[in-house]
Amino acid sequence: MYRMIRTATVGLLALGLAGTATAAELKPEEQIQYRQAGYAFMAWNMGKIKANLDGNYSQPQVQAAAETIRAIANSGMGALYGPGTDQNIGDVKTRVKPSMFTEREEVGRLAMNFINAANELAEVAALGDEAEVKSAFGAVGKSCKACHDQFRAD
Amino acid sequence: MYRMIRTATVGLLALGLAGTATAAELKPEEQIQYRQAGYAFMAWNMGKIKANLDGNYSQPQVQAAAETIRAIANSGMGALYGPGTDQNIGDVKTRVKPSMFTEREEVGRLAMNFINAANELAEVAALGDEAEVKSAFGAVGKSCKACHDQFRAD
Repeated sequence: MYRMIRTATVGLLALGLAGTATAAELKPEEQIQYRQAGYAFMAWNMGKIKANLDGNYSQPQVQAAAETIRAIANSGMGALYGPGTDQNIGDVKTRVKPSMFTEREEVGRLAMNFINAANELAEVAALGDEAEVKSAFGAVGKSCKACHDQFRAD
Repeated sequence: MYRMIRTATVGLLALGLAGTATAAELKPEEQIQYRQAGYAFMAWNMGKIKANLDGNYSQPQVQAAAETIRAIANSGMGALYGPGTDQNIGDVKTRVKPSMFTEREEVGRLAMNFINAANELAEVAALGDEAEVKSAFGAVGKSCKACHDQFRAD
C-alpha cells in the first residue's frame, strides 16, 4: 500500500496535479492496489456505520460514511479488473478467484446488487431513520458477502 | 495528539460531517492503512479526471470520480490520525511528519481548503463544463500539494 501510494502521488507532486491514469494505462499491480484501496476505505466506512448502529447514532457521520460507500460503489471499479490482475504480482497479492474473470454475467449481477444496495443506504442515511439505515446497511453487507463467497479466495 | 485530532477534524465538525470517532477502536496501524487507502483511491480518481481533461472528455466518468473525491474528503479522515499513527508500525509505513500532530491550526486550514476545493470540483463536474472542471481540478491538486509539501516526508 505504501509503495503504491508513493507511486501514485509522485505523479501528483511532479505535475502539481495528477498523472495520467486511465485504467488501460495502469499497470496490473496498480489496478490491484487501487481496487484494494477502494474496498479498504469502504470497509472503514461500513465499520463506522456499524459502530453507530451499535452505539450512539450520529446521523451526520452515518450519512457521510454512506455517501462515501455510494460514491466508491459508483466509481467504475470494474476498470480495475484488467488483464493480468487475476493473480499475485510480486509483493502485490490478490485474493480474487480466476472465475471472476470468466463468469461475467454473475459478476455483473452481483455488482449491480451491490451498487443498488449502496445507493439505497445513502438515500436512507440522508433521511436519518435509524431502523431504515439498519435494514439498508444489512442489505449492503449481504451484497458484499455474496461476491466474497463466490469470487474471493479464503 | 488528541488535540491534533480535534483540530484536524474541526472543519468537518463545523460542517456536521464528523461524529464520535470509532478510530479509538482501531489500532494505529489500521488507522494508517485506512487513511492511505483513502488517499490512494482519491489518487486513482484524480488520475481519471486528468486523463479525461487530456483526452476524450466523458462527463459521467468525471462526475463519478469527482463525487468519489468529494465523499472521501468529507468522510472524516482526521479521525485516522490518532495517537501512535505518527510513525512506522512494523511493515506499516507512514510518511507523515511529526509536525502534522502539533501544527493544529495549519492542518485544519489546509484540510478545509482541500474539502472546499473537492466540493467545488464535484459541483462543476455535475454541470459538465470542461473548462470549469479543469480550473476546479487544478485547485484540488494545489490543495493536495500544499499539505504534502508541509506535512509529508519525501
